[in-house]
Amino acid sequence: MTNPEKKHILYKESIKREVTALKEKILSFLDDERYEDLQALIDNATKEELAKVLETLDEDHLAKLFDCLDKELAADVFVLLKQETQKMLLEHFSDIEMQEVTEEILDEKPEELLESMPLDVVQEVLLKADPEQRNDKIVEILNFLEYKKFVQLKPLLSELKPMDIAEIFAEIDEEKLPLIFRLLPKELAAETFVEMNSTQQELLIRSFSDHELKLILEDLFVDDTVDLIEEMPANVVKRILMQADSETRKSINEILKYPKDSAGSIMTTECISLRQDMTVQQCFEKIRAQAIDKETIYTCYVTDNQKKLLGIVTVKDLLLHSYNERVEDFMQDNFVYADTLTDKEDVANTLSKYDLLSIPVVDQENLLVGIVTVDDALDVITEEATEDISFINAVTPSDKPYLETGVFRIYLHRIPWLLILMISATFTGLILNTYEAMLSTLLVACVPMIMGTGGNAGSQASVTVIRGMALDEIRPRDILSVIWKEIRVSLLVSVSVGFVCFAKLQLIDRFIFGYPYTLLYSAAVGVAIMFGVIVAKIVGCCIPILAKTLKIDPAVFANPFITTFTDVLSLLIFCGVTLGLFGLGTV
Amino acid sequence: MTNPEKKHILYKESIKREVTALKEKILSFLDDERYEDLQALIDNATKEELAKVLETLDEDHLAKLFDCLDKELAADVFVLLKQETQKMLLEHFSDIEMQEVTEEILDEKPEELLESMPLDVVQEVLLKADPEQRNDKIVEILNFLEYKKFVQLKPLLSELKPMDIAEIFAEIDEEKLPLIFRLLPKELAAETFVEMNSTQQELLIRSFSDHELKLILEDLFVDDTVDLIEEMPANVVKRILMQADSETRKSINEILKYPKDSAGSIMTTECISLRQDMTVQQCFEKIRAQAIDKETIYTCYVTDNQKKLLGIVTVKDLLLHSYNERVEDFMQDNFVYADTLTDKEDVANTLSKYDLLSIPVVDQENLLVGIVTVDDALDVITEEATEDISFINAVTPSDKPYLETGVFRIYLHRIPWLLILMISATFTGLILNTYEAMLSTLLVACVPMIMGTGGNAGSQASVTVIRGMALDEIRPRDILSVIWKEIRVSLLVSVSVGFVCFAKLQLIDRFIFGYPYTLLYSAAVGVAIMFGVIVAKIVGCCIPILAKTLKIDPAVFANPFITTFTDVLSLLIFCGVTLGLFGLGTV
Repeated sequence: MTNPEKKHILYKESIKREVTALKEKILSFLDDERYEDLQALIDNATKEELAKVLETLDEDHLAKLFDCLDKELAADVFVLLKQETQKMLLEHFSDIEMQEVTEEILDEKPEELLESMPLDVVQEVLLKADPEQRNDKIVEILNFLEYKKFVQLKPLLSELKPMDIAEIFAEIDEEKLPLIFRLLPKELAAETFVEMNSTQQELLIRSFSDHELKLILEDLFVDDTVDLIEEMPANVVKRILMQADSETRKSINEILKYPKDSAGSIMTTECISLRQDMTVQQCFEKIRAQAIDKETIYTCYVTDNQKKLLGIVTVKDLLLHSYNERVEDFMQDNFVYADTLTDKEDVANTLSKYDLLSIPVVDQENLLVGIVTVDDALDVITEEATEDISFINAVTPSDKPYLETGVFRIYLHRIPWLLILMISATFTGLILNTYEAMLSTLLVACVPMIMGTGGNAGSQASVTVIRGMALDEIRPRDILSVIWKEIRVSLLVSVSVGFVCFAKLQLIDRFIFGYPYTLLYSAAVGVAIMFGVIVAKIVGCCIPILAKTLKIDPAVFANPFITTFTDVLSLLIFCGVTLGLFGLGTV
Repeated sequence: MTNPEKKHILYKESIKREVTALKEKILSFLDDERYEDLQALIDNATKEELAKVLETLDEDHLAKLFDCLDKELAADVFVLLKQETQKMLLEHFSDIEMQEVTEEILDEKPEELLESMPLDVVQEVLLKADPEQRNDKIVEILNFLEYKKFVQLKPLLSELKPMDIAEIFAEIDEEKLPLIFRLLPKELAAETFVEMNSTQQELLIRSFSDHELKLILEDLFVDDTVDLIEEMPANVVKRILMQADSETRKSINEILKYPKDSAGSIMTTECISLRQDMTVQQCFEKIRAQAIDKETIYTCYVTDNQKKLLGIVTVKDLLLHSYNERVEDFMQDNFVYADTLTDKEDVANTLSKYDLLSIPVVDQENLLVGIVTVDDALDVITEEATEDISFINAVTPSDKPYLETGVFRIYLHRIPWLLILMISATFTGLILNTYEAMLSTLLVACVPMIMGTGGNAGSQASVTVIRGMALDEIRPRDILSVIWKEIRVSLLVSVSVGFVCFAKLQLIDRFIFGYPYTLLYSAAVGVAIMFGVIVAKIVGCCIPILAKTLKIDPAVFANPFITTFTDVLSLLIFCGVTLGLFGLGTV
């Protein structure tokens, strides 16, 4: 009779022996670089055996062996390892090297992940994963967890960038958000708050005590506070202004009075000003003292007692001069600046043109009132491109991401344009109603092609010119060179289009589908399309320039006007050429 | 008999007395702030008299009086003043205050300007003028001047930013360019060279001696040299590579091997690397030593001996720690980085998302190979927006400004799309040819409106989704929320469009123009347009997402496909609804 206890021990002994045997084989294969044999060995072993072997190896062999496993096996084995071994592996391999394995691990359910692995390893795994996948997983984990377990994830959140935390928070259940938000350390909380969408910001502010709100506001830069105020409803704004200190309140009111889209409205008032008689040493002392509170420190502004802007000094300039030199001896006094009322798009373009990190904003008396930084310029450039793309395609631009914009708002952004364009189609309807009796069926069937090609040819020209003007490459006074260029382009284009149109009618419509398009018919349509293209291109390039001259945004104005115009013109030309020039009436 | 000499003296005396009298009156009016009387006095005086008075005043009165003159008079008087007085005025008033006057002065012919005023005053005037006007004037002056006089303008050019000089050079006569370019000091010459267009760069390189080329190349950053090489013809590239030092040549070859549009292809290899055991003091010493040669110094990279990237330290971090602290104690080890093969658009978006000034680029072994700076990211974002706008509107994007692109190249960028779209209109032609016999004239006249509205509704949806995906706000897995949103929006939109269409046919076409659109006809067209809009919106939002899933640029793919699709669908729906549902045949 065998003792079951004994049997168990024997069984364990045998496993241990097997593992030891496996380990020795693996070690010898590894050292002799017999990778094919090693692979065969791995394929035959269970993941538990492999985990046991891995735990007994030194770091070098451990890494080598782990590297031989395919990603699925590696993930399975990794979860079984002891915490120290897991950490050793995470430290040994770089983020990129571990990425496939971490992805595989994260594909398992997050609860399992949390149960099977200690929290600091989970954190390491999450931090090594691809940001997109990582954020989704964290959302899942946070939504799954109870409050008391959130606290364990505090160190994980503290390791993330504010932009990523905001992305994660955007998908967290509403009632959990205020609790999780309070886990963030003070400064990170403020930075994250800035990146969140306005609905969530409002939710949080409503859940804050006055003291909590004050703490957040203290850590916000003035321009961010202004952005926040512009988004919030009146009662929230009142609370914000009450909690802001008087200095900040003054700056906020200052910025709020500038018109939307002006440099003043996007600037921040926090920047480092120096005096012209300061030495490099004194400058560095001042920068060190103020750096923590300023959005950017790399460009400093030299002003006099009245805050009149005298020059600019970069930290690079300071580093290139010795400690006892004076600022006035090397400051750049021929600098680029913006007016508070300069259009923000111009400011962004200037910043981009001169490769600056920030640009000073002065008031009418030439006194320094703030700066616009390159990250704001980037946002402006992206926004303006979105605006242009929207207007050109008949949508009023939205300042919120699509998925966060309400259905009714999207409706409002689209419906006016659709209606204007639909009603302006009255003209083409009238023309067709007038001439239709005279046009043969074959010619009427060509109308969509004629109008479509005219419209496309026109918008090709208008879009190129609109974009060129947005980038400051084309100015209104270039109108003659633009027209001359478009005339030459449209001649080339129209000849090709006319010829292909003729060929298409002969080959496709007549030969393949058997419609009786004679040579004369096809030639008439081809000639009509040629004239249509030339006229559309010239109209298309002129209208945006005229709009700009009249100080109307070319993108807004160009679209409905050019469409209506080219539609009507190409239809009229079509009727004129086929009926008048070629005499192709139905009669 | 009066001595003519005497008479002349008497005459001069009388002028002098008049001027003295004028001066006294002016002074008393100024001091008593009797501005109306002063204005009357000014209006009666000649510009010569005013100039004489101004020259005798102290700075305070001078400025006050000058400020009272309107801009035309001020300009006329200014030109008559002695050089010291001119300089005093230029120094007293800020650029903005002088702008109207300098504009007025510059509106006179440049040659007169050069003759009537000494060169250093001309320079001051030009530098105070609005950059746009200033650059044009400088072009005029340079084109007008003979070579030996260029030299006098050397100090003026040295005061301008490289981007402005490049703009000026773009309009200088070709044969004068190499001469004028040689006037620039060495470093400015290199910076200007980078900003010039490739035609002019080639012209210059061909005019350079090997030594001159070497000097310019020495001052270029590696990424700029790479851009240059990519633009130049083979024989020029050969010369450039021969003159570059071996270190640069190695870096160039390194960058050139990365695919177009990858992070590797836009990075620069010049950045400051630190070791983790360095103290703040040692870091600053290294930065000071290397700053002059590096494109950016504000973010430094901590690497080990193998160049493996361990962390990031900003100059701001360094300034916030004391001199004897070690880098490893405060470096950011959880940093954002890009792979050499990461798409440059993703790199730019990441840089923008995290508000970075530069982002490190690592190779497959996680070794630091370069950085991408924010100014390059700005260019990428602008370029990508232009690309999207172009593709959406059926133009192949150009990497050169419109005015610098040749006619034939513009033709090539436009013709394929026009032809594809024209030939795809075959489908609508077939549908019309099939159903036209059955459709009444009144219904055929509505076809452009039906197709136009369907097309516009579809492109509104597709453009919003395309832009949302470019900005990373919409991801392919959001497809269901996008469709659900578009369904709701399209229901709202279609009801409005259908109703307005019905009303328009009744009010405009029937009531005003007298076409016999009965209630039934109008209702049929209204219902058809409703269905058309709904289908177009859903197709419009799905196609870009499908394109992205298939790894095709949504902007390229979306346009021709969606246009053809919505045209055909709305036409079919129209025929189906009017003929099938409402039974409105011609018979």
